[in-house]
Amino acid sequence: MTTTPVPTERVGFIGLGTMGGAMARNLVRAGFDVTVWNRTPGRDTDVVALGAHGASTPREVAERSDVVVLCVTDTPQVREVLDAPDGLASGLRPGSLIVDCSTISPLATQEFAAQLGEVGVHWIDAPVSGGSEGAERATLSIMVGGDDADVARAQPVLAAMGSTITHVGGVGAGQWTKAVNQVILAGSYLAVAEGVTLGLNAGLDMTKVVGALSGGAAGSWILSNRAQRMIDNEYPLGFKISLHRKDLGIALALADHAHTSLPLARMAAAFEDELIAQGYGDEDNSALARVVRGDVVVPGDA
Amino acid sequence: MTTTPVPTERVGFIGLGTMGGAMARNLVRAGFDVTVWNRTPGRDTDVVALGAHGASTPREVAERSDVVVLCVTDTPQVREVLDAPDGLASGLRPGSLIVDCSTISPLATQEFAAQLGEVGVHWIDAPVSGGSEGAERATLSIMVGGDDADVARAQPVLAAMGSTITHVGGVGAGQWTKAVNQVILAGSYLAVAEGVTLGLNAGLDMTKVVGALSGGAAGSWILSNRAQRMIDNEYPLGFKISLHRKDLGIALALADHAHTSLPLARMAAAFEDELIAQGYGDEDNSALARVVRGDVVVPGDA
Repeated sequence: MTTTPVPTERVGFIGLGTMGGAMARNLVRAGFDVTVWNRTPGRDTDVVALGAHGASTPREVAERSDVVVLCVTDTPQVREVLDAPDGLASGLRPGSLIVDCSTISPLATQEFAAQLGEVGVHWIDAPVSGGSEGAERATLSIMVGGDDADVARAQPVLAAMGSTITHVGGVGAGQWTKAVNQVILAGSYLAVAEGVTLGLNAGLDMTKVVGALSGGAAGSWILSNRAQRMIDNEYPLGFKISLHRKDLGIALALADHAHTSLPLARMAAAFEDELIAQGYGDEDNSALARVVRGDVVVPGDA
Repeated sequence: MTTTPVPTERVGFIGLGTMGGAMARNLVRAGFDVTVWNRTPGRDTDVVALGAHGASTPREVAERSDVVVLCVTDTPQVREVLDAPDGLASGLRPGSLIVDCSTISPLATQEFAAQLGEVGVHWIDAPVSGGSEGAERATLSIMVGGDDADVARAQPVLAAMGSTITHVGGVGAGQWTKAVNQVILAGSYLAVAEGVTLGLNAGLDMTKVVGALSGGAAGSWILSNRAQRMIDNEYPLGFKISLHRKDLGIALALADHAHTSLPLARMAAAFEDELIAQGYGDEDNSALARVVRGDVVVPGDA
């Protein structure tokens, strides 16, 4: 038998949505002393029932924690949690460590890290992928940017939430990597949607065809796990189109910053805008196939 | 120990290119009595050395065979092999079976099958994927269209050349499936190329990033097996751009026929046209990244 060392760092957690709530519960289960806060009240019931302490402000989270995990929607929400009255910044001490699991801009990430670095607070960015299922099962992939010592310090916290943890570079590199992930996803969904639509319009038994192609060069996670939704033309979650569109917005701004042309990602963003406008924003990302199938028409699209 | 039954059908093989030559050799090794022919003389040396009979015309192949495998470039080459003076059609007998492993139009396939069906000759379409490595190792994926009895009859021949054999539907369904495969490949190469290019332009260690993403939702055969070529900006074969462009031409004609809009596949075809025009047609398909990286400029592209 091996014995699991008792976690010694006190962990704060801010943002108890579908992802964050599950991740915070896994931290409690792993034995950490956890203090939580969520902007919308009442979301902390489950994690408090497991033994977490419910704080009334981000400042209180900071005061009761050594490491604070963030899992909020976007860059403005991170800024608000940090800088609002009774925000995190007012309670953090030199030596505190922020682990930002939100998906936000890597450029803003570097600003936040620099701002807090002036008062001795450390920062790593650690956006995740793997969806709500990965969050529940603690099997998330976590893309980490930060200094070696900070990443090593966060390792027990990250290991309680995910199973594949890759330190890709300095502060911001995790967010850049997440942007690359979302760009590849955009084109991959469209690629599979085009193949599925062509096959359906030809009258092929597409379930059989997908089976035939999955083991070859056209094989992908999306072909194996999302093509059937496109065949059925039903798109249960999954990962919401509206969230992928938010992430693509970050990625496309980065592409401009890096003087990179991303025609597929731009096409996916335009398709997603139309899907959201027509009320499909809460469907799974595979609903991009609605546009390729011609059921949702994007104005100006050829 | 199991004993392998001695193959009882005599097999003809037409088209001894990189793929066909390896496939014909595997048929000889499996114990078939094989007769071969190739339009360009001298390509039969290896397979004849293994024990195949070298014929001087397609007609002679037909006369000496029960099953004839075709592995030629495109629809016009299949038509020529069939209908030229001393072509296959002049030597085939009622009960002969054609196994067309070429990638050609499924619409032309149905015409050829109907034409030969009038004289009692059977036809299945069996395009392959898996590249020269799959052809050498007899691990090709084979997508088969045809009548049940014909596909069952061809099974020992197919099993000598490939390891994943899927009967997807009637005559032509194999070619439609191959078209779907090439469409998915087109978008998938571009999707990975966009992600790799964004990451490189951001200064990320992309080999590390690809490793981090390969196990997640962005994972694909292309990400695992071709992203590194895009990172290195070197594109050894692989699968030639010029051949993928030929296959995309078939797929895009089918898309028109099936009233299906395929904007990614069309974009890939335009990129490949420019790559071929600039002398990159013999590079691996992953060289599509040259366009996304901005090293090759497509006129009129945004």
